[in-house]
Amino acid sequence: MANHSRKRPTKVGLPPGTLVHVGEKQVEKARITVMDYDDGTFQEKVIEAVGECFGFKETATVTWINVEGLHDVGIIEKLGNCFGLHPLLLEDILNTSERPKMEDYGDHIFLLLKIFVPANTNHDEKIQQVSLVLGSNFVISFQEKESGVFDPVRELIRKAKGRLRKLGPDYLAYALIDTIVDSYFTVLEKFGDEIELLEDELVMDPKREILQKIHRLKREMIYLRKSIWPLREVVNGLERLETPLIKPTTDVFLRDVYDHTVQVIDSVETFRDLVSGMLETYLSSVSNRMNEVMKVLTVIATIFIPLTFIVGVYGMNFRFMPELEWRGGYFLVWGVIVATAGVMIAFFKKKNWF
Amino acid sequence: MANHSRKRPTKVGLPPGTLVHVGEKQVEKARITVMDYDDGTFQEKVIEAVGECFGFKETATVTWINVEGLHDVGIIEKLGNCFGLHPLLLEDILNTSERPKMEDYGDHIFLLLKIFVPANTNHDEKIQQVSLVLGSNFVISFQEKESGVFDPVRELIRKAKGRLRKLGPDYLAYALIDTIVDSYFTVLEKFGDEIELLEDELVMDPKREILQKIHRLKREMIYLRKSIWPLREVVNGLERLETPLIKPTTDVFLRDVYDHTVQVIDSVETFRDLVSGMLETYLSSVSNRMNEVMKVLTVIATIFIPLTFIVGVYGMNFRFMPELEWRGGYFLVWGVIVATAGVMIAFFKKKNWF
Amino acid sequence: MANHSRKRPTKVGLPPGTLVHVGEKQVEKARITVMDYDDGTFQEKVIEAVGECFGFKETATVTWINVEGLHDVGIIEKLGNCFGLHPLLLEDILNTSERPKMEDYGDHIFLLLKIFVPANTNHDEKIQQVSLVLGSNFVISFQEKESGVFDPVRELIRKAKGRLRKLGPDYLAYALIDTIVDSYFTVLEKFGDEIELLEDELVMDPKREILQKIHRLKREMIYLRKSIWPLREVVNGLERLETPLIKPTTDVFLRDVYDHTVQVIDSVETFRDLVSGMLETYLSSVSNRMNEVMKVLTVIATIFIPLTFIVGVYGMNFRFMPELEWRGGYFLVWGVIVATAGVMIAFFKKKNWF
Amino acid sequence: MANHSRKRPTKVGLPPGTLVHVGEKQVEKARITVMDYDDGTFQEKVIEAVGECFGFKETATVTWINVEGLHDVGIIEKLGNCFGLHPLLLEDILNTSERPKMEDYGDHIFLLLKIFVPANTNHDEKIQQVSLVLGSNFVISFQEKESGVFDPVRELIRKAKGRLRKLGPDYLAYALIDTIVDSYFTVLEKFGDEIELLEDELVMDPKREILQKIHRLKREMIYLRKSIWPLREVVNGLERLETPLIKPTTDVFLRDVYDHTVQVIDSVETFRDLVSGMLETYLSSVSNRMNEVMKVLTVIATIFIPLTFIVGVYGMNFRFMPELEWRGGYFLVWGVIVATAGVMIAFFKKKNWF
Amino acid sequence: MANHSRKRPTKVGLPPGTLVHVGEKQVEKARITVMDYDDGTFQEKVIEAVGECFGFKETATVTWINVEGLHDVGIIEKLGNCFGLHPLLLEDILNTSERPKMEDYGDHIFLLLKIFVPANTNHDEKIQQVSLVLGSNFVISFQEKESGVFDPVRELIRKAKGRLRKLGPDYLAYALIDTIVDSYFTVLEKFGDEIELLEDELVMDPKREILQKIHRLKREMIYLRKSIWPLREVVNGLERLETPLIKPTTDVFLRDVYDHTVQVIDSVETFRDLVSGMLETYLSSVSNRMNEVMKVLTVIATIFIPLTFIVGVYGMNFRFMPELEWRGGYFLVWGVIVATAGVMIAFFKKKNWF
Repeated sequence: MANHSRKRPTKVGLPPGTLVHVGEKQVEKARITVMDYDDGTFQEKVIEAVGECFGFKETATVTWINVEGLHDVGIIEKLGNCFGLHPLLLEDILNTSERPKMEDYGDHIFLLLKIFVPANTNHDEKIQQVSLVLGSNFVISFQEKESGVFDPVRELIRKAKGRLRKLGPDYLAYALIDTIVDSYFTVLEKFGDEIELLEDELVMDPKREILQKIHRLKREMIYLRKSIWPLREVVNGLERLETPLIKPTTDVFLRDVYDHTVQVIDSVETFRDLVSGMLETYLSSVSNRMNEVMKVLTVIATIFIPLTFIVGVYGMNFRFMPELEWRGGYFLVWGVIVATAGVMIAFFKKKNWF
Repeated sequence: MANHSRKRPTKVGLPPGTLVHVGEKQVEKARITVMDYDDGTFQEKVIEAVGECFGFKETATVTWINVEGLHDVGIIEKLGNCFGLHPLLLEDILNTSERPKMEDYGDHIFLLLKIFVPANTNHDEKIQQVSLVLGSNFVISFQEKESGVFDPVRELIRKAKGRLRKLGPDYLAYALIDTIVDSYFTVLEKFGDEIELLEDELVMDPKREILQKIHRLKREMIYLRKSIWPLREVVNGLERLETPLIKPTTDVFLRDVYDHTVQVIDSVETFRDLVSGMLETYLSSVSNRMNEVMKVLTVIATIFIPLTFIVGVYGMNFRFMPELEWRGGYFLVWGVIVATAGVMIAFFKKKNWF
Repeated sequence: MANHSRKRPTKVGLPPGTLVHVGEKQVEKARITVMDYDDGTFQEKVIEAVGECFGFKETATVTWINVEGLHDVGIIEKLGNCFGLHPLLLEDILNTSERPKMEDYGDHIFLLLKIFVPANTNHDEKIQQVSLVLGSNFVISFQEKESGVFDPVRELIRKAKGRLRKLGPDYLAYALIDTIVDSYFTVLEKFGDEIELLEDELVMDPKREILQKIHRLKREMIYLRKSIWPLREVVNGLERLETPLIKPTTDVFLRDVYDHTVQVIDSVETFRDLVSGMLETYLSSVSNRMNEVMKVLTVIATIFIPLTFIVGVYGMNFRFMPELEWRGGYFLVWGVIVATAGVMIAFFKKKNWF
Repeated sequence: MANHSRKRPTKVGLPPGTLVHVGEKQVEKARITVMDYDDGTFQEKVIEAVGECFGFKETATVTWINVEGLHDVGIIEKLGNCFGLHPLLLEDILNTSERPKMEDYGDHIFLLLKIFVPANTNHDEKIQQVSLVLGSNFVISFQEKESGVFDPVRELIRKAKGRLRKLGPDYLAYALIDTIVDSYFTVLEKFGDEIELLEDELVMDPKREILQKIHRLKREMIYLRKSIWPLREVVNGLERLETPLIKPTTDVFLRDVYDHTVQVIDSVETFRDLVSGMLETYLSSVSNRMNEVMKVLTVIATIFIPLTFIVGVYGMNFRFMPELEWRGGYFLVWGVIVATAGVMIAFFKKKNWF
Repeated sequence: MANHSRKRPTKVGLPPGTLVHVGEKQVEKARITVMDYDDGTFQEKVIEAVGECFGFKETATVTWINVEGLHDVGIIEKLGNCFGLHPLLLEDILNTSERPKMEDYGDHIFLLLKIFVPANTNHDEKIQQVSLVLGSNFVISFQEKESGVFDPVRELIRKAKGRLRKLGPDYLAYALIDTIVDSYFTVLEKFGDEIELLEDELVMDPKREILQKIHRLKREMIYLRKSIWPLREVVNGLERLETPLIKPTTDVFLRDVYDHTVQVIDSVETFRDLVSGMLETYLSSVSNRMNEVMKVLTVIATIFIPLTFIVGVYGMNFRFMPELEWRGGYFLVWGVIVATAGVMIAFFKKKNWF
């Protein structure tokens, strides 16, 4: 998971109110698509010049404008001016290191969320920022680049399935948020699979690389948690908002999204506990195993060192060593050796030392 | 305890509002039973076709419909339509990875709880989801499969014992929740027994497998806690709900269930502390023992290594080594050896090293 | 401290509302005593049949009924019926594994508390449950067995000392609670003494048994904390209760009990910190000492192993070893040995290794 | 810092309402001083008999009565009766093991605080209890013994400096509290110096005694924290109190004291973190150093043990050992020894083992 | 980061209300600059005598007075008197060890914040205190010394860019706070870079100095956290303040600053987690590596010690040792040696001990 925690350098030193894109440029050219629908009509088109969407502002139908690519500050600014969006809101859209948040600007509500887009490399998820603006007859969504996260909603609109075409922009906003929260479950599942795999590995054959893996998991969990935790308060805030933009009938759906958010956070916390437990298990089992090994090795050394001393004694070259002249001296020494070893082994066994 | 923490994959990518059963199919065929009663009358039957229970909707008597088996989405949907249940509620019933929750839909209240069903294997408890819907004259309960958890309530109704037949559906709902919370005490007792056993083992003869057991206990505690913790807020929410569906006389009973819930959570927390303490005790006592062993072994080696050096000296083959020619040289060396060993032993003893 | 954390098994499977005694039978026969008094009159008697106390219900004087022994469910039930106690309250009285709590039933207030009765064995305190019911003109107290905790209050009533005889049942209830909270200080003092003793032992001569003692203390603290912690909310709840049963003049006394409760909890927390600190101190000082010992031993071995090698060289039996023929060869080797040892010792000293 | 955490034994078993001094007798004879002033007048005297201060009760001027020494219960009782203090308040004054608290008795406010008086020994601070009673025209302060903490306030009154003589008893109470909170900074500074010293020692030359010092610091921090933490809520409570005894103009000063209290608590928490960090640093650096030492020692042993084996081989006395007869055998063995040692050293170096 | 946690000694013992500068004198002479502007007019000047700014008090234009250098108490006092600032406020400005706070004095609002000024040395940031006073038509800012943190705002005013010249002093105050919060991101970025560097070092080649660095980082984080954490409550308090001094249009900007503050705190917490994780990783990987090394070394020793014993046996000088006379005895012994070593190596390999 990429480290998004401290980007904002390019803004430091600039006066407040300056529109600057903070983040990597991820697409060549911003891509704008519009879906305009109500129960009966439906229209979908790709916009070339940003001005084309201004027409939709006055229509009674629900309009969903989706912008992919944030580096072209001009487009964002023009859209903002046309739809009357607050300058601070535009700043937030452009600054991809913001924290998830919800802001009520009276005639429009602003939502800033994070999604996890699979990266090319194996383990990393890239965190992308998604902004939603809900107005009285429109929803505008901004993404850093094309991610496919909204595809199921698009399908629903195109096929006029479900309640979507019958309800207003607030329900569309709900559907988009729901899709985003749902996408977290995929990430969680991947984490869950990794944890299960590691748990099996821990039981079967704990190798040293497992430590690296546990620590990596732990670090990713820190980032994941940081992106998801504020979501709870965002969705809860949205649900409690006193605003004509959200109809009472949509409240129960928002409550449902809230429940899912809590479930996601719950799972992240459980994962944290599990990973901590795994680390503990690994460390204590490694240390246990190590201790056992060292004990056995030390026992072997401890038995042979005194024996070596004994044979050393009779390796001395004194002229007068009576034992050396004895006929059975050699065998006697062997007897002493075996006896000594035996006593020591018996003692260690009794003490349960190996 | 089975890992329920990240199931929801089959819903990802589907539009909101689609009814899908998320979880394992646990029974061949859904089984529906109905109990219909008031103070005077009583009727119990097994339903073959879901339509049979629609008739009970209009009666003034209390109706309890119990559904075991969730894989047949059609049945759930028909029941839901007949009794006017909210679509999101039906989604929650079908998704067995939900978090315990309580939802007030105006003319019915929805409760989602977890029970622990003993599995075949020795240690594992399976977490099962139980949903309750309380309406003005009915209670509908949904289970993943037959569990027997509600049997005491059934007996009470059949035998017209206690207050159950005299009171309304809210008291029935209370009785069902109370039975579920009571069932947690059985699980807790099992944990308590295991902990006591392990504590005895710790004192008597700490073997290495105990570590595995403690870690397993710790992991199960994580899942148990995750299932039980939200219960507090669920039961508390139910008690504070301003709704005509729950009569004031039932409040005091709900308060009692709440107290039991808090007691369950308290016990889980105490168990956590105890298990952590056990792990600490085990690790520190193992390390202590290990240290003692290593110290003794090292002391032995340390005594004999210098002695071996001494005898090594007189094993040298120099032509001119005066000591070798001495009459008492050999015995002198023994004296030196004994003296050296004695001094070292005395020193180590004084230092309290073994 | 006895493990009270998971008793309730005998109730599992029973319908709610069944009166069952959960706990050990601690006395042969329940013992009931009555004290009836006001400013002028005073009467004290031991009741043989429970019916004898029914007469006190209607009198204007303050009546204190004290029941010792809970196994005789009949007595509790009859008392309950006569004084109009709620069935759930009776259930709680009988279930000795309940959590401290306070319940307002309108015309009577129920309080469930724990006391610590010294056991015969040295370290264990037995946790006993005490229930109080405060009505408009009576207080009923239930204990598992005779404990003497209320003796000071009895003396005060008998001798008409203090405000007790002049004030109503609410002040009597306060006096009983105050006596219970005061009794905690005795337990705390015992813990404090043990901790001080262990601290001295730690500084003077840390033996291995100290670990066992620290862990035992830690475990007992877990149980102690569990029993005392809910007390805070109980006493606070009582103080804030809007009820005619407690006169405004009693509030300031309840506030005082509350302060003492907080002080008890504070002390328990401090003890926990101290015990944790002691464990840490012990473990780190043991590990430090162990390290020192191992270092010295290893240094000795490390010095002699190379020396043994040197003498080993000249113990070889090669026909052509020029050094062996040298006159001063032997003394030269001694020189080499002493030099080697000297250099190593100097090096280790310089490195501060022993 | 003296262990004040579990004193109260002498009260256990006594009925509530009995006035008993709990604590050590610290002075021979209680000393009472009175300062009586307003903007124009000023009078200061030492009282011999407690009755002398009763006259000040009715005067319109601000009266500050300071009592040093609590063992003479009679004095406290008489003062209490004259100024109409609540019996519970008197109990609290006498019990020196109370927790800091604030109590509003309507016509007077009671404050119980702790101060730290330097003890004779080097490290210990003695915790002393200070009680303040604020009435409509008087402040009474109680101390265990003379401490000098209020001297700056006395100076201010005598010299008529600042606002003190112009304002009422509430400002006097503020000035006294402010002086007490200020005195904590001295204690904190001492802790800070000790921590800084230890940090330097840690970097320069960590000896074993440092462990003892860190643990002592940790333990003292536990007591310090216990005494200071409740202060926050005490001062905050005072600030929010709705009482005619405190004029609105004094509120801003109380707010300032509150800020300082928070700052003190903040510092204590920071110290805790620092001390914990130091312990961690020490333990990990010691263990690191130890590991390095052991590694070097073990490497030396590991190199020489195989060499000793080699020379041991040629120390054998077999009649037929061809090598022994070789001319260059001896030198060859030296070659083998050097080569073996060389290879091992190279291998260990490469592996970065020493 | 300099230790600012316990400075206040010079005030201890002084009566409340005395103006004293607590902190180091950082500049030779206090420097005062004034900017006075509205939409049309603009004036900037450096003040020589503090009296020159008194004239700006009555003008309708926005006046920003910036004071750099706090040691000259007289200047602060005169400014305070002229603009009617509360004495406690002046005390706080002068005491550079205060905690960040916000105080509403009715006709002016006081803000105390911290900034981090790069020090000359490599790692240390110096914490400087900045105070802001917002009045109806003026903002006064106080700094310990010139820091350049407000330069972007000065530029904006001079060039009449953005909204600044069109809006009142509340927007100016917002702009100053925003600049300060922005400056934290620079510090965070530096921390982030250090952490990333250390993480790379950890993976590549963990040396012992890394421990020192991690611990230093941890300690600095403690100070950073202490300075930033109260900021949240300060900015939040400002946003919620009911005061005519802040116009409703400024609220949304304050909300934005609040979001950034939360983001800063979030990052600090994430850094803490990361650093803790790094320490853990380092310690466990070092201990793992150490264990591996010790195991290999011990295995080598364990193999050779028994072999040395064997050759020791045949180094004995007994007259009657049959094996010595055998023709192939020597080679047989070699066989025994090789076999023993082989069996041991095989055993250790099988046990996976090296």
